[in-house]
Amino acid sequence: MASDFRNVSGDDRMDTPVSSGRDSIELRSIGLNAAAPEAVYSSNNWQSGVPRTASASTSAYSFTQRLASIFSASSQSTSLPNAPENISEAPPLSRSGGSTPFSPERTGRYSLESTATTKELTEWTVQGGGQRVDYEDLSAIDWIHEYQKERQRELVYQQQQGFWGKLLLIGDSTQLWLILIATGISVGVIAAAIDIVSNWLGDIKLGYCKSSFYLSQAFCCWGVDEKDVCDDWVSWGNALHATGAGIYIVSYLFYIIFGVLFGTSASLLVLLFAPYASQSGIPEIKTVLGGFIIRGFMGFWTLLTKALGLCLASGSGLWLGKEGPLVHVACCCANLATHVSSTLRHNEARKREIFSAAAAAGITVAFGAPIGGVVFSLEQVSYYFPDKTMWQSFVCAMVASVSIQLLNPFRTGKLVLFQVVSNRPFHKFELGPFFLLGIMGGIFGGLFIKLNMKIARWRTRSRILGYPLLEVVLLSLVTSILNFPDPFSRLQNNVLVFRLFQECNGNPTVLCNPDYFGGTVVLLTLVCIIGFFFTAYTFGTSIPSGVLMPSMAIGACYGRIIGIAMEVWQKNHPDFFLFDTCLPDVACINPGVYAIVGAASALGGTTRLTVSLVVIMFELTGALTYVLPIMIAVMVSKWVGDAFEKRGIYESWIQFHDYPYLDNREEPIADITVAEIMTSLDELVVLTASEHTVASLEQILETQNYKGFPVVADGRQAILIGYISRSELRYALHQAREIGLGGDALCYLGGSVPSGDEAAQCVDLRQWVDQTPITLSHRSSLQLAVSMFQKLGLRYLLLTMRGQLQGLITKKDICAKYTVQ
Amino acid sequence: MASDFRNVSGDDRMDTPVSSGRDSIELRSIGLNAAAPEAVYSSNNWQSGVPRTASASTSAYSFTQRLASIFSASSQSTSLPNAPENISEAPPLSRSGGSTPFSPERTGRYSLESTATTKELTEWTVQGGGQRVDYEDLSAIDWIHEYQKERQRELVYQQQQGFWGKLLLIGDSTQLWLILIATGISVGVIAAAIDIVSNWLGDIKLGYCKSSFYLSQAFCCWGVDEKDVCDDWVSWGNALHATGAGIYIVSYLFYIIFGVLFGTSASLLVLLFAPYASQSGIPEIKTVLGGFIIRGFMGFWTLLTKALGLCLASGSGLWLGKEGPLVHVACCCANLATHVSSTLRHNEARKREIFSAAAAAGITVAFGAPIGGVVFSLEQVSYYFPDKTMWQSFVCAMVASVSIQLLNPFRTGKLVLFQVVSNRPFHKFELGPFFLLGIMGGIFGGLFIKLNMKIARWRTRSRILGYPLLEVVLLSLVTSILNFPDPFSRLQNNVLVFRLFQECNGNPTVLCNPDYFGGTVVLLTLVCIIGFFFTAYTFGTSIPSGVLMPSMAIGACYGRIIGIAMEVWQKNHPDFFLFDTCLPDVACINPGVYAIVGAASALGGTTRLTVSLVVIMFELTGALTYVLPIMIAVMVSKWVGDAFEKRGIYESWIQFHDYPYLDNREEPIADITVAEIMTSLDELVVLTASEHTVASLEQILETQNYKGFPVVADGRQAILIGYISRSELRYALHQAREIGLGGDALCYLGGSVPSGDEAAQCVDLRQWVDQTPITLSHRSSLQLAVSMFQKLGLRYLLLTMRGQLQGLITKKDICAKYTVQ
Repeated sequence: MASDFRNVSGDDRMDTPVSSGRDSIELRSIGLNAAAPEAVYSSNNWQSGVPRTASASTSAYSFTQRLASIFSASSQSTSLPNAPENISEAPPLSRSGGSTPFSPERTGRYSLESTATTKELTEWTVQGGGQRVDYEDLSAIDWIHEYQKERQRELVYQQQQGFWGKLLLIGDSTQLWLILIATGISVGVIAAAIDIVSNWLGDIKLGYCKSSFYLSQAFCCWGVDEKDVCDDWVSWGNALHATGAGIYIVSYLFYIIFGVLFGTSASLLVLLFAPYASQSGIPEIKTVLGGFIIRGFMGFWTLLTKALGLCLASGSGLWLGKEGPLVHVACCCANLATHVSSTLRHNEARKREIFSAAAAAGITVAFGAPIGGVVFSLEQVSYYFPDKTMWQSFVCAMVASVSIQLLNPFRTGKLVLFQVVSNRPFHKFELGPFFLLGIMGGIFGGLFIKLNMKIARWRTRSRILGYPLLEVVLLSLVTSILNFPDPFSRLQNNVLVFRLFQECNGNPTVLCNPDYFGGTVVLLTLVCIIGFFFTAYTFGTSIPSGVLMPSMAIGACYGRIIGIAMEVWQKNHPDFFLFDTCLPDVACINPGVYAIVGAASALGGTTRLTVSLVVIMFELTGALTYVLPIMIAVMVSKWVGDAFEKRGIYESWIQFHDYPYLDNREEPIADITVAEIMTSLDELVVLTASEHTVASLEQILETQNYKGFPVVADGRQAILIGYISRSELRYALHQAREIGLGGDALCYLGGSVPSGDEAAQCVDLRQWVDQTPITLSHRSSLQLAVSMFQKLGLRYLLLTMRGQLQGLITKKDICAKYTVQ
Repeated sequence: MASDFRNVSGDDRMDTPVSSGRDSIELRSIGLNAAAPEAVYSSNNWQSGVPRTASASTSAYSFTQRLASIFSASSQSTSLPNAPENISEAPPLSRSGGSTPFSPERTGRYSLESTATTKELTEWTVQGGGQRVDYEDLSAIDWIHEYQKERQRELVYQQQQGFWGKLLLIGDSTQLWLILIATGISVGVIAAAIDIVSNWLGDIKLGYCKSSFYLSQAFCCWGVDEKDVCDDWVSWGNALHATGAGIYIVSYLFYIIFGVLFGTSASLLVLLFAPYASQSGIPEIKTVLGGFIIRGFMGFWTLLTKALGLCLASGSGLWLGKEGPLVHVACCCANLATHVSSTLRHNEARKREIFSAAAAAGITVAFGAPIGGVVFSLEQVSYYFPDKTMWQSFVCAMVASVSIQLLNPFRTGKLVLFQVVSNRPFHKFELGPFFLLGIMGGIFGGLFIKLNMKIARWRTRSRILGYPLLEVVLLSLVTSILNFPDPFSRLQNNVLVFRLFQECNGNPTVLCNPDYFGGTVVLLTLVCIIGFFFTAYTFGTSIPSGVLMPSMAIGACYGRIIGIAMEVWQKNHPDFFLFDTCLPDVACINPGVYAIVGAASALGGTTRLTVSLVVIMFELTGALTYVLPIMIAVMVSKWVGDAFEKRGIYESWIQFHDYPYLDNREEPIADITVAEIMTSLDELVVLTASEHTVASLEQILETQNYKGFPVVADGRQAILIGYISRSELRYALHQAREIGLGGDALCYLGGSVPSGDEAAQCVDLRQWVDQTPITLSHRSSLQLAVSMFQKLGLRYLLLTMRGQLQGLITKKDICAKYTVQ
């Protein structure tokens, strides 16, 4: 027993199979890394009867292994009722991936936090909330403790006199800003690099630059007039000297080969090096910012994999965007930046404030929208967003935006990506079609989320789960085959969106030529259909992928279709009463505006964003004149979308994964008291203050898998005196054993410890006990308890009546309450 | 004693002198309505020994009377150490104003809340938080109770079957949206009316329209080219056929006369009809949204007075803006709109959500900035701003913006008020001057706040306090005299700002003519100086006045000065290395951009807004290209300003007035436990559960002025079982007397009530007791207590140890902790 704890400070992973107890948040679904090889590997391991310690000693003890261990804890048998059927069908690839040495950040830590703290710093915890060890992976953080710790540290600095104290104080306040600036700059640099590389990869599918192979088409043909032919850029058909239909066929083949190659490489990177790098990461970031620890989710390998994977994935022509994942990239940068600060690194609550700022920087570089980024972070990503954080986000977004503007990856010199030149005010009758676009956006969003979720659920049941790489290979193949024939879908999403947004003042492109309107509408409709199904499938595979740009592209397509229809109608019936306000010689309808409004409506339908979306749209296009149409479309689309499906795409994924995210938008449905859902006293394991020995506590730790134990005065009356977490208790007992105390040494969790000779033979655990746990009357309404969890960031709440413990309720209980749809 | 409570349900104002007890939030300063006549009147009354009941029976028992009564409660003697010296020198005007019959909304209410509720609706309160009566004026609201009430109501609707239940449910959810839409529309209409009237009033000072007297200069000369003379518009000098210098003198005289007339009328309106209509109202709105009741602050008379007063005040030429006060106007509209809904009217928490949305609409119509409005409401005004509220604000702002765009008060057809045509990107070297502008903004803001606060404090000590009207008359006179000679300050602020923002492409105005640059700079500097001092004085007088537009005008002036300086420098030294990037034939520097950046920096310095300010600036100007310079200026200005003075102008006024506003940006400085600042058990008046009679409780109510009493099980052990507020206790005792119970009837505040015959002779007060009050360990840190007050919206917190009451801490105690600078 005791020897089990010898290496506890080095590696605490051995206890994970039993730690899925009350206080921790379990993840009962295996969604996120369903496709990750470790999941299969470890589950397999587990099923084949390998002992626990052996399983835990593999170096890649990851999220998914933990998930598997949860199954073991919940069922304690070899039957896995909830596990996928093909769990033992691990492909060879998975096995090699299972013990990858490339995840240094995924090892658990178990050091006493802030080891470098002064004596003053630790003293405060003795009487109040108790000392703590580091959080375990996949556990909820204690916001109150984190903020108190921070406050305490500030006070220590303030009390220090002299030059050194001053310096510490200045250094302390500067640190944060330096980290924010570093984050902003690195996000800008990485985003610029991703932009350049993914553009080049996207172009290389169609041809190459003769003079300099490393240039994308735009840079290769820089300075060449649009109407002229760019000699420097050679399509693969021409390069291989094909003729006639051969040109098309060769180009088609190259397009497919490159597409599959890029898609496969991106997926391979993810599967081999960082499973957390798949998808957009926004649902996970929301969960992390809600107060949850996912170790390695924002580590260096995740960053590297995601950045490289994004270049490849968005160059592959798959229906995915790189905008959402940039938020994850930005958070990784921020996380790495905090490592330089000894104080911030250990404060999970303040780290989350920095992540909020980083998320703003991510959207800033994605859309060239600094303000939109801040509002996005506030509206979508962050859980706790005080004014202070808004200000920090603002600074971080600004730095990111300056840095990307200086790097100027598109050589336009402007922050506005899809600049719309026209500033003609819209006509009043156009509000009708804008309204219609809003409805279409809502319907699109609602159906998209439903389909995407259906596919996600199907994937967990289907055989494809075991072959995530094969899935991406096939997907890339089919996508490439279908994308190429349609000249619009052949374009990269952002180029397509840019073209659709443009006005037709004398522009002789296909989009603006009335002769081709019929064909254009058909092609755009096809893009919508292909885009809808492929985006719904792609968002969920093991590849870094966002959903924002594809939604926007689809919305821009149907918007442009409506715009063209309006234009044709107006041109054919200029005398119709609605068109009275049109001037005779000027183009009355600008289909580009419809594309913008359509894009906004589609994004609104998918994400259910409101204010941030409008800000992003007008920072993206500069079309301030159209703020009202955009607002109307977003409003209608949210209303219609909410009627289909209450949750946005990110919330749906959170729910799908059963993440322990306590949405502060939702309120409990039932009108019940806390007592009705609490774990009542009879079911709890409660420690008495002074009746336990080291051995008896070790016994409890071994046999019970609760994450913490309330401490009561004595066995007769359950007068609550504190709460001790499993990790602290284990650490303290381990320490006691280290100094040579026997199993019969008395442990004091409260009350007074004997003095003199007796003191040497007893263990004073009081410093590890939270002596002022938050309590609530067990007859309070559940709603109150929920808002305490939401607003104070609690992990658990002890329920008392007149000082007597009645029960316990954890964040998990609250989350479980919500997942019932 | 009992007869005192006979009319309690009609008018509870008689008890106010003793109700400034523990649980309520006292206002110890007399700032807000220092200039309001009632303050003087009632204090006067009180000092001359008029009995309390007589004082209370005047119908205008207002905020300031309450303030006076607080003095009586706190000192209990006739000496008034903190009261102004000239308190007995009330001018004749004040006396007539003291008993004005025009304030119907200022009467207190004392009805049992939600009288129309069903039985189900009240039952839940019996076991939980207890039933409540309406809040008293100037008391803190109980957010938890309000939200629970709301939740309960929804549940009742949901449980109702059939057509009626469905209808109720739909009606319930529609109500809110109808109120938001009604608010948006009415705000749009009122703002349009104010725009038109104030423009006309501003123009009439200079001349009149010959053809139609009611037209402003812009409308009178509609269609006349700028270079041509507008014959229809006649200046007063010409109208009276003056010649030579006579024209100037007559115009000057008319300018002064009208200015003083308008200023005086505005002030008179405020003093006579609604003291709450003075100033911007934003500090008070912040306080109200923080969870405080100020009856009449958002009533009909306040709305009317403020709207009319705004027209007059902003037409008077005083250095004030109408933008901030529009937020107050919008909140009044929202408050009146909620009156149609029986459910929303009685829910103070949900009303605050609607006020947040209304504040967004206010800024929307003020600046034509719907998104800016929403972010402003979030950043500056609101206390609790969940996503739901953001969405509601968004809708409300959109409706307001559509309605003002349809009304089109300026006939520009655009939402963008000060449209800037230029979209030339700025040069990199310009970031230097923009940075400088940021510093200037910070210095301006810091000094402005310091001066404004100094004047405000001086005013409370000075003799001018008794003559608020005279103050405004003199102020208008001096302002008019100084404003007229300078052609820039003669303009209305918004016209000035508009002109300063414009680019000089071939514009032959004074601002753009290089020959006049010297004179222009001198005149603009004068405007800055005059504006600085007069705005600092005006913001604080008894007149509806905002600080946003004057700050903007001052900022635009110094910005333009810097811009002109840069232009001159560049033109004289085109070869200087910085100006390499300038093209030879194109104007390199656009001083209009400097004016925009300057305006943003000045606003940033005064208000310390960040994101919302940037959004407002670019919605106002459409200058999306300059988002980066604006961001930099705002950032620098906030940093510099914070170094001068930590609080923005609104927060400074909140602090000056000692409003019970618990800023969630601030954290407690000291590291102490709650026990150190709580009112401990020995000092508390505690009720026992079953040992009191009606008479003894009445006795306690009479002799103690605490706002509420903890209830304990028995006298020996202070085991906490609940909390009863003063108002509920009084109401319940009154009811007991009504049904004929004697003073010796036993009162049960907890435990079990005897059944059978005995039951008739005892009073069951348990339904009025909050049986699940929020408790905290008295050894918890103050920081935790503060964040519970901030985030859960508590009014009081009971401190216990192992179930035993240790003390009590109220929101007031927390606020008092903060006001110490």
